[in-house]
Amino acid sequence: MPELRHVDWSRLFSPKVVAVVGASDTEGSPQRAQWTQVHRRLGALGAEVVPVHPKKPDILGVKAYPSVTALPADPDIVIVLVRDPLPIVEEAVNRNAGFVVVFSAGFGELGTAEGDAAEARLRELASGATRVLGPNTNLNIFEPWPDGLPSRGKLAIITQSGYQGRPITQAQALGVGIEIWATIGNEADLEWADFVGYLAAHRPNVGAIATYVEGFQNGEAFMRAADACVKARIPIVAIKIGRSEEGRVMAAAHTGHLTGPDAVHDAVFDQYGVIRVDDLDEVIEISNMFCHTGLVDGPGGIAVYAMSGGTASHVADLFGAAGVKIPKFERTTVDALEKYIPWYLRRDNPVDSGGVITARPENREVLQLMLDDPNTDVLFAPITGVFPGMSDALSRDLVALHQRFLAGEGKPVVAAWISPIRDDSYRSLCEAGVPVFHSFNAAVRGLSELGRYSRFVRAYRSPFDGDAMAGIPAPAERAVAAVAGRELLAGAGATLNEVDSKKLLAGYGIPVAGERVVTSADDAVAAAVALGPPVVMKIVSADIAHKSDLGLVAVGVAGEDAVRATYDRLLATAASAAPEAALDGVLVAQMVTDAVAEVILGLSHQHPFGPTITFGLGGVFTEVFADVAFAVPPFDADRAREVIESTKGVRILRGTRGRPAGDIDALVDVILRLQSLALDLGDAISELDINPILVRPAGQGVVAVDALVIPTRRP
Amino acid sequence: MPELRHVDWSRLFSPKVVAVVGASDTEGSPQRAQWTQVHRRLGALGAEVVPVHPKKPDILGVKAYPSVTALPADPDIVIVLVRDPLPIVEEAVNRNAGFVVVFSAGFGELGTAEGDAAEARLRELASGATRVLGPNTNLNIFEPWPDGLPSRGKLAIITQSGYQGRPITQAQALGVGIEIWATIGNEADLEWADFVGYLAAHRPNVGAIATYVEGFQNGEAFMRAADACVKARIPIVAIKIGRSEEGRVMAAAHTGHLTGPDAVHDAVFDQYGVIRVDDLDEVIEISNMFCHTGLVDGPGGIAVYAMSGGTASHVADLFGAAGVKIPKFERTTVDALEKYIPWYLRRDNPVDSGGVITARPENREVLQLMLDDPNTDVLFAPITGVFPGMSDALSRDLVALHQRFLAGEGKPVVAAWISPIRDDSYRSLCEAGVPVFHSFNAAVRGLSELGRYSRFVRAYRSPFDGDAMAGIPAPAERAVAAVAGRELLAGAGATLNEVDSKKLLAGYGIPVAGERVVTSADDAVAAAVALGPPVVMKIVSADIAHKSDLGLVAVGVAGEDAVRATYDRLLATAASAAPEAALDGVLVAQMVTDAVAEVILGLSHQHPFGPTITFGLGGVFTEVFADVAFAVPPFDADRAREVIESTKGVRILRGTRGRPAGDIDALVDVILRLQSLALDLGDAISELDINPILVRPAGQGVVAVDALVIPTRRP
Repeated sequence: MPELRHVDWSRLFSPKVVAVVGASDTEGSPQRAQWTQVHRRLGALGAEVVPVHPKKPDILGVKAYPSVTALPADPDIVIVLVRDPLPIVEEAVNRNAGFVVVFSAGFGELGTAEGDAAEARLRELASGATRVLGPNTNLNIFEPWPDGLPSRGKLAIITQSGYQGRPITQAQALGVGIEIWATIGNEADLEWADFVGYLAAHRPNVGAIATYVEGFQNGEAFMRAADACVKARIPIVAIKIGRSEEGRVMAAAHTGHLTGPDAVHDAVFDQYGVIRVDDLDEVIEISNMFCHTGLVDGPGGIAVYAMSGGTASHVADLFGAAGVKIPKFERTTVDALEKYIPWYLRRDNPVDSGGVITARPENREVLQLMLDDPNTDVLFAPITGVFPGMSDALSRDLVALHQRFLAGEGKPVVAAWISPIRDDSYRSLCEAGVPVFHSFNAAVRGLSELGRYSRFVRAYRSPFDGDAMAGIPAPAERAVAAVAGRELLAGAGATLNEVDSKKLLAGYGIPVAGERVVTSADDAVAAAVALGPPVVMKIVSADIAHKSDLGLVAVGVAGEDAVRATYDRLLATAASAAPEAALDGVLVAQMVTDAVAEVILGLSHQHPFGPTITFGLGGVFTEVFADVAFAVPPFDADRAREVIESTKGVRILRGTRGRPAGDIDALVDVILRLQSLALDLGDAISELDINPILVRPAGQGVVAVDALVIPTRRP
Repeated sequence: MPELRHVDWSRLFSPKVVAVVGASDTEGSPQRAQWTQVHRRLGALGAEVVPVHPKKPDILGVKAYPSVTALPADPDIVIVLVRDPLPIVEEAVNRNAGFVVVFSAGFGELGTAEGDAAEARLRELASGATRVLGPNTNLNIFEPWPDGLPSRGKLAIITQSGYQGRPITQAQALGVGIEIWATIGNEADLEWADFVGYLAAHRPNVGAIATYVEGFQNGEAFMRAADACVKARIPIVAIKIGRSEEGRVMAAAHTGHLTGPDAVHDAVFDQYGVIRVDDLDEVIEISNMFCHTGLVDGPGGIAVYAMSGGTASHVADLFGAAGVKIPKFERTTVDALEKYIPWYLRRDNPVDSGGVITARPENREVLQLMLDDPNTDVLFAPITGVFPGMSDALSRDLVALHQRFLAGEGKPVVAAWISPIRDDSYRSLCEAGVPVFHSFNAAVRGLSELGRYSRFVRAYRSPFDGDAMAGIPAPAERAVAAVAGRELLAGAGATLNEVDSKKLLAGYGIPVAGERVVTSADDAVAAAVALGPPVVMKIVSADIAHKSDLGLVAVGVAGEDAVRATYDRLLATAASAAPEAALDGVLVAQMVTDAVAEVILGLSHQHPFGPTITFGLGGVFTEVFADVAFAVPPFDADRAREVIESTKGVRILRGTRGRPAGDIDALVDVILRLQSLALDLGDAISELDINPILVRPAGQGVVAVDALVIPTRRP
């Protein structure tokens, strides 16, 4: 897989010459405001910022040039504010511009042939050394951000919509400093992955990336960039449109992005630790938290300090429902809390102080005891209603504890402020850098991600590092299989028949049932004897997809007479049910009689990630419950196992109601072999379905009993 | 079912004599603060408020009495602030007190024998005319609330925790007036349903009830009270603890409430339109919305006005994921919007104004056109980031439109304010009574409930009104079945055997397979001939629960020899597999060969609702996916159908992949018959399982082929 591409970012962030095409001095025009802003901001960085105007000699006192071509020096940045930007981009490319920023909309998002053509031309112009930002973007990338906010790490924001990014920048009110905000529009050239890869490599201050995404242009680049962030320990908190058809349609009309299949995005996010949320408050509050707390060293144990049994119950209920276990304290902690918390309240985690202690100076000791417990990695203090006697005192304690943490002497604290009233105590928390949530749901999500992401980073093995992927089948065998596979695919029509499909699989070491194709009843009898009865018999034809539904499969056939009769019946049925189909014979196959479960494995192309593996149990599991899971190559054996474990159907594979467990190890092995096939031949395969694979009891392996491969249609 | 009980609320809300036991003048003591507060608040209502103190002649200048017994007049309210309240409650009951408020904790929530005994004694004391509030409560019920807030309806708050109710009262900052806040503690006597029933009957100003509940004491009373609220068009927005085991444990320790099974609560909430949410911000913002908007007349069509394509995409995505369809506008509306919204932006719903128009005066016309569209019942305007040029102007427009609505000249508007910055424009919305949400998720939930609840109220038929429940079986048949059923249950041991279980069902007209119990091979043959082959044969024994697992069921038996051999084999297998079991013979039953699906129906007791019907498809549907649904009597045929439709397995019943649809009508009929059985005999039945019921093709009915009834254990 390709590395992230190289971009010379210094010309964007430390430009020497900047040209603004369409700069204007017309009172009240947006172009005047934009010119003024860019001139001031980039001038402050030391750049010479010049207007380009076809007629005017100057704009607001700054000498103008009639065209980009006429500029005295090659520009680092050309900002294009005019309606018809393509000719300007072409000029800029010819002048070796480093970056061109294209404001105008009217490209791919229109969904018209003209719009698509314009965007294609823009891509073409961006195929050389000049990078293009946009179209359909703005100047957020040049916005300067105030220093002096209390967060340890700074927030980087990447959005495909300015208006969706604005509230994230306003997280400054929660005490977080902003590192950069890139609004990336249609991404005709520079895309999400370019910016994220840049941040991971070059911006060590970044504590989290908050992002609003409608669609990714390039799945491989996405994975590379996300991988770089894990290695740099930078959590990505993302809204990704595509939960519903309505969102998909609107996103296409907004920035022309294809959202792609949602569950596959979830799978890839899972593979790279991306924290996907659904709402802006979650993006804001969770990324804010990470910038204040950083990652935790332990597993992420949360100590909950509640001022009421009701709040303790509610928070415990929500953590429980989210699958997050609140650790119990050590006995010594509980005993020490006895001094402060009366007998009828709860001294173990979650603590119910009942409010009795909260307003007293000793409350600090309660909080400190909770933080010092070895099971605690972070303290969570929900403040529901404003009740100054209590909320003021608790806020003061939290600020003091956070200052100790910043001084390197403790663990982080996190607050929730639920009341619609935001008073001075609330502001004191934000100003001191105590991360604040405004709902329990966001807090529960954020705190569980704090532990989960910290553990994820520690356990991470990059699939792009050579040794993370299991090398199966062995390289020599795999090379042979790839050559043979390409031949099979090249020689096939619209689909490979079952026999050739299985041959492709078998080349990669995926076990298939012992079988023979016969073209006479005599041969069928001989095959049944050789394979051992009972056998399965079925029609072989690349033209028939759903053989069972047409009565073209016979199961459990034993005895010479039965084999003969079945052979004749199958041919007769095929002749009447599918008279047009070309028949390649009858398949006689060993019958697996000890299967624990039937599973399906698939390979398909999923935008924007390319070849993707699908796993699920057959029957109602997939048909009614859509209980399938995805894995996008490259991935390792651990991931393959997680994919299986993430389905509800895994309970069948683990053995239920006295039935034996299935051979999950063998299934993991097959998924890895299918991955190798996908990496080698993915470009030549449009779709591959193994349905079913029979899973035998543990230690007995698995067997693919039917398969269908559709080669990529060649133009 | 009993009506809600009568309570003379006038003595609580317009008291003449109030005694405060434990009133104190000790500087800094909570009891002094409480005395002062009650004296002032209830005095302001015209009550004579007196302290009770064993020694002091007065408390802060007000003459004290040495005991409740010594009071000059029977008190309307006795407030008990002392640690050991039971003797005082006893005195108060003897003095015919109207209400006793018990502050102290130390009752059922302790989980000790002493605590339980104290709570039981309190219940006993409350068995007469005196009502008890608490224990483990406070004085919130007497809190006066400011007038003059802009909401049309007022908010009533009922919580089982003071600290969880406080932030809801602070919804005043969002512009909602508070009608009352009751903190109801352990509910030894007065419970949630008493207060909710009272609000529905006597407080016409209430626009919504916001509630935090750990557990309900009495399921029937809950249903009566919720029914009264639907009739009074008062939405109930509820947090109910019990999503997880952790929450259940904490709630029991807080107020001693049993949370009960969560999915059954969801089912009952569904039956009575209760809006269950998980978080305090949702309770606050959704109940606030209802107080400002009331219900809508139409289906609840939402017109979305976004200032950016990103926001439009995001909101559309979330509505879509929530299953809420945003209506398209009429052609005339879209055409009229053309005048204001440029060609490259979206003029249909959701509208993307792109911000171009937002700051201009014509924006009001855009909003008005959107509101006037016949598909619109409510306008939703999300404001993400603070961008004064736009957010100030839009806020002004929304305030103006809301004022028109309040004047009876329009439809409601709803805003979302997502930015962490809350500026003057934000406050202007709240002060004018425009309902504001602070996250898209809460807004999407609230707006969808606005339509859903409005439709629910219009379509509601109370199950407590005689004609809402289908009268099946017919009264005469049902009376006979009930008598026969009681006899069967009274005569049974630990369980009814299969034959008697089915007899019980058949009495209520639930179809069972034709069958005979035989005790010889000859009789088995005769039965098979009479019933028609093939038959099912199985051992009959009340001592054996899982016959299939033990090999005690034979399916598809046909022919005299096979029947004889099977008879002998079943007896032999039973003798070795269950040697202790008492055998009642062998059942020979008609075999259903055209079943479309196997479903299970159950009857069980679910706290606090009593007899509850369970429905689901068999096999992995229930075992792996817990795809079951509940209905709590009383309910009608529509509800029975909704229960079936709410499962994923219904897709099998509707027919999939060319298989025929099942007889859902017959299944509805059986559920209603099972309800009649539950209502008649629920007290005598601990558990009833019909597993499976075979569902035949539409029009062909259903057949119960196995059933097990466990009578209530008599003490």
